[in-house]
Amino acid sequence: MQPDLSCFFNPESIAIIGVSRNSTKAGYGILKNVLWTFPNTEKIFPINPRAKEIMGLKVYHSLTEIPGNIDLAILFVTPRTIPSLLQACYQKGVKGIIIESAGFAEIGKEGKTIQEEIRCLGKQFNIRIWGGNCMGTVTDELITTFEPITADMRRKGVVSIVGQSGYFSRAVILQLFTECYTGIRKAASIGNRIDIDECDLLQNFLEDETTKVAAFYLEGLKRPRKYLKLAKKFTRTRPLICLLGGQSEVGRSAVLSHTSSNAHGSPQLLSDLLKLSKIIQATEFGEFFNIVEAFPKLSLPNGKRLAIVTITGAGGVIGADIAAKYNITIPELSISTTHKLQNLFPDWMPPKNPVDSWPAFEIHGLDEALRQIIPILFESDEIDMILLMVAAMQVAITFDPTVVRDMKKYNKPLVTYIVGDDAIKSQWTSQIRSEGGVVFDDINAAIKILDLMASYSLTKGL
Amino acid sequence: MQPDLSCFFNPESIAIIGVSRNSTKAGYGILKNVLWTFPNTEKIFPINPRAKEIMGLKVYHSLTEIPGNIDLAILFVTPRTIPSLLQACYQKGVKGIIIESAGFAEIGKEGKTIQEEIRCLGKQFNIRIWGGNCMGTVTDELITTFEPITADMRRKGVVSIVGQSGYFSRAVILQLFTECYTGIRKAASIGNRIDIDECDLLQNFLEDETTKVAAFYLEGLKRPRKYLKLAKKFTRTRPLICLLGGQSEVGRSAVLSHTSSNAHGSPQLLSDLLKLSKIIQATEFGEFFNIVEAFPKLSLPNGKRLAIVTITGAGGVIGADIAAKYNITIPELSISTTHKLQNLFPDWMPPKNPVDSWPAFEIHGLDEALRQIIPILFESDEIDMILLMVAAMQVAITFDPTVVRDMKKYNKPLVTYIVGDDAIKSQWTSQIRSEGGVVFDDINAAIKILDLMASYSLTKGL
Repeated sequence: MQPDLSCFFNPESIAIIGVSRNSTKAGYGILKNVLWTFPNTEKIFPINPRAKEIMGLKVYHSLTEIPGNIDLAILFVTPRTIPSLLQACYQKGVKGIIIESAGFAEIGKEGKTIQEEIRCLGKQFNIRIWGGNCMGTVTDELITTFEPITADMRRKGVVSIVGQSGYFSRAVILQLFTECYTGIRKAASIGNRIDIDECDLLQNFLEDETTKVAAFYLEGLKRPRKYLKLAKKFTRTRPLICLLGGQSEVGRSAVLSHTSSNAHGSPQLLSDLLKLSKIIQATEFGEFFNIVEAFPKLSLPNGKRLAIVTITGAGGVIGADIAAKYNITIPELSISTTHKLQNLFPDWMPPKNPVDSWPAFEIHGLDEALRQIIPILFESDEIDMILLMVAAMQVAITFDPTVVRDMKKYNKPLVTYIVGDDAIKSQWTSQIRSEGGVVFDDINAAIKILDLMASYSLTKGL
Repeated sequence: MQPDLSCFFNPESIAIIGVSRNSTKAGYGILKNVLWTFPNTEKIFPINPRAKEIMGLKVYHSLTEIPGNIDLAILFVTPRTIPSLLQACYQKGVKGIIIESAGFAEIGKEGKTIQEEIRCLGKQFNIRIWGGNCMGTVTDELITTFEPITADMRRKGVVSIVGQSGYFSRAVILQLFTECYTGIRKAASIGNRIDIDECDLLQNFLEDETTKVAAFYLEGLKRPRKYLKLAKKFTRTRPLICLLGGQSEVGRSAVLSHTSSNAHGSPQLLSDLLKLSKIIQATEFGEFFNIVEAFPKLSLPNGKRLAIVTITGAGGVIGADIAAKYNITIPELSISTTHKLQNLFPDWMPPKNPVDSWPAFEIHGLDEALRQIIPILFESDEIDMILLMVAAMQVAITFDPTVVRDMKKYNKPLVTYIVGDDAIKSQWTSQIRSEGGVVFDDINAAIKILDLMASYSLTKGL
């Protein structure tokens, strides 16, 4: 079979089998999202044997009633009805179906049997099958999931992401949209992988120039050899992030009852193989978010020389301690750079790295101090990346988060750490994130990201 | 000298030298906080040579004008005026002074000289000196800092906390109040430690029964032997948390220009000594907050047997993988416990640990499912602690965070991890925290806290 997924991402016509007028039902959500995002309304065909019209569209009672051929069928129906539907799909020239309803291998023997039957029929009819037990797709062109996606959440981006788990995929995409302000190119929930698997998606991302970063949550590779081969190609030019569940004994046994994936033969071996393919591995969800957010937003560093710019001396001390745990250096500043910075500092405070900038901030105000200190460091050729640490307080400090945005022009990564008052912290964090910056409330996480980005940058293409 | 700090925490009369009518000035903030929190208004004496009345209080032009003796003097004045003030303080029977203004050892040679002069005079006059370059104290009885503290932030608690660094102390306290909803018994910013140091404070906390948890940010111990001796006593019954800055080479050199503290001879040796004294060590601020928040809020576990209750199977898988990195077991459930849980689950889904509870939640609703599953686990004698994982979504899931509060009665720790929609996540997080629960958005951090709590619980008193 060709790994062409255009029938899923760019179909010419869509049938939705199992639509509903009840707004709490998945069959309602799917139609709503398709109607909103698919440009050719005349080529959307809702199907429900007991309805006439939904959302202003004519409802068909069966596939065969629909005039002409269908590219994509999205199903939210009970599993046992699917084999006969596949026959009808075949007759209407359907190239791909997305099964979002559940009740397959994950519920036991009966479900497994029907899943296997569907798989065989798909092969026989040459129809690609996506799912079941999945949440479909969210792309910058078409949304097929039942999950409500609001207009302000639909942010075009360069990240393509694949999740195996249903709730996980939904929660991850929501968090990426709402908290991280990360735009999505393609988000794919592949569920039980009756046919379409992570290799099909990685192949698709490889051919998709708009995908600049790819990220996968997997509980087992269906075709490890193929995946690693594709990964090697992908990571030559673009970062590929994996969170691999089931690396421990209990985790592996939980995988079996969760997605029934092939347990990784040896998790350590698989992890080593991923590393050889230059895949960036996250250890848990929080880190997964951090990496997926940071790579598209920040420029890659050309080295591992870090400057810490802080208004709290303690931040500089702890930042230096953490950097020492990674392979990151905090270089001494040259005489020339020190001299440039000294103009901003009182005589009694010779600037060093970490740059404890409160004396400069007390003289010039924080924003002005930062708008001068950061460029001096970035232009110095001594510094590859900056960790900026600010304290959120109701008085004494007026920090304008646009500083972070304005420093993007130097094409070197700057990450921000904020400590302090919750309301101010939240406000600054949202603003920085929405303007393409990256914020952490954990110094270790901030420095780990810089280390991962620098390591990727220094080895990619090798 | 006696380590009695009652003149700082429970003075009978207070003079504030350097008050200001300008609300952006520290001398205004100090008076405002004292006036708000000190019960005996007649015993508050603002001093400013150029004012008559501030906030309805008579302003004195000098200490000598004040009738009767003074217990505590709070100073916000230029350093060079302090030696002569000390003479006046002595004449008024002052027992302790807090110097909040800066300009001492941290600004170089001149500042060092004046600092040493103040130290000697304090000894000579038998006056204890707190600071300088500090932010004073915030206790559940009296606030002497200049930082604005609002009524809803002033939460009585059992945590006593000491910070060396000014901005750090301010930001930490703000974050503990506003984000972590952690009540404070005593917060102390000790600044340059002209006289009062971390040993005085630890001794004070040791004698203070209301202090149930003590936490220190330190960049060097002034009297290491004494501190470790006090720590050993304290940790016999109560947790003591330390974040020790300056453990790396660059970090140590940053300490020198930050607080000029004695660099730790060998950081590794010191860290080992802290461990021997059963001090819980944080590696950075984020972890420091987590530990300081968790200990007073959660019951101590009696062992390391963890149950994971999750609505996303992926959460259970990753949680199990992370637990395996720590010394935490995720035990198989007994037949009896499995049997009790099975009543809530469909037949095709035998409950295991991690407890992937979506099938139960689809039948009973999430709240009802959790209100039954968690008690079965906590009452089983097989489980010492629970990690609850929920997904924040706009539809499909209605989760009532009071579940977390209601499970506190089992006297076993439960921590919550939330992933998903930012607005819902923030709302649930605030509610859980404000009702005495603990929430993480990082699974590793959640499990690390449980590990630290269990380790402390299993070794304390030994």
